[in-house]
Amino acid sequence: MGVKKKIKGQLIVLSGPSGVGKSTVIAELMGQRDNIYFSVSYTTRQPRVGEQDGVNYNFVDRAEFERMIADNELLEYAEYVNNYYGTSLKAIRDQLDAGHDVLLDIEVQGAAKVRERCPDALFIFIIPPSFEELSRRLHGRNTDSEDVIAGRLEKARIEFREIPKYDYLVINDKVSNAVGEIEAIMTAAECRVDNRSQILSQFA
Amino acid sequence: MGVKKKIKGQLIVLSGPSGVGKSTVIAELMGQRDNIYFSVSYTTRQPRVGEQDGVNYNFVDRAEFERMIADNELLEYAEYVNNYYGTSLKAIRDQLDAGHDVLLDIEVQGAAKVRERCPDALFIFIIPPSFEELSRRLHGRNTDSEDVIAGRLEKARIEFREIPKYDYLVINDKVSNAVGEIEAIMTAAECRVDNRSQILSQFA
Repeated sequence: MGVKKKIKGQLIVLSGPSGVGKSTVIAELMGQRDNIYFSVSYTTRQPRVGEQDGVNYNFVDRAEFERMIADNELLEYAEYVNNYYGTSLKAIRDQLDAGHDVLLDIEVQGAAKVRERCPDALFIFIIPPSFEELSRRLHGRNTDSEDVIAGRLEKARIEFREIPKYDYLVINDKVSNAVGEIEAIMTAAECRVDNRSQILSQFA
Repeated sequence: MGVKKKIKGQLIVLSGPSGVGKSTVIAELMGQRDNIYFSVSYTTRQPRVGEQDGVNYNFVDRAEFERMIADNELLEYAEYVNNYYGTSLKAIRDQLDAGHDVLLDIEVQGAAKVRERCPDALFIFIIPPSFEELSRRLHGRNTDSEDVIAGRLEKARIEFREIPKYDYLVINDKVSNAVGEIEAIMTAAECRVDNRSQILSQFA
């Protein structure tokens, strides 16, 4: 009865406003699922205190980043405040080809670029149960001033307008609910007839 | 944090060859999920020993069935050996509108008709892990002659050609796996952005 059900990994693109609890959801998901790989971004900016190379970011110098651009190794990249930030397409492809799922935590503009090159990825947007709750969570962090929080909430409102471009909407009212929904989305995608054509060919 | 995540029920169309274990999968699924309704077919044929009205079929007379046809109450129907068999669209719509999911166990031709009228339904085809296993299961029932089993296997091969018309392919290697995959498919569909537009509108 040993059917190989899964042939190729899936790319999962996660977006959501600051404060929605994405990192917690991702950590939980990584712990619960096998063969899942979190795509760590590349950046030319200096590591902050406590940040680890290969964990928070892959820290590279400008020359190396520009080589990656020239060699078309990046799925998407952007420059903010004189520093590059980008996603390695090569690293993702290697993982997908090895049958691993790849998780990408990316903002709405980056996600739109990923959609162009990887239309088959699963695009998931995570929302809080309400704006009031998002505000509460941002205040609860005790790290940002009122102005910064107001700015994050305003940014969230703008990002929410892009949700129709996503495939799935997950509500993080409770981490276990959000993780369960993302797992279901991943499992359902594995069951798509298109993704199981090799299984079908065993019956031809 | 009380977000109403689900507004409308989903129609799930299940097909699969005789012997694949569909009834067991359906019974398990019904036991595990709330608010799920199994659509019982209508027929004009006489009940067999042990069959219950409203459970195995809704048994109606020819006049009533023809009234349902005339009133456009049927999602699909067919006539075999002078008896009508059909699916009530009205019963399904009532359940969906009440927020219940509706499960439909139907052959490939019937499923194609359902697709025409309910393109948003989830079309799931259940296969065995192998043809050998399907043959083993059919033999294990001890109810059919070799000729009948050969006929069922041949019919399965023909049905399998229609799988590309389905959305999802579920492998019943183990009932719990198949049920888990169907549940994931249903949950993922609930998470589709289109199905959660009413949640989104709370943030507008």
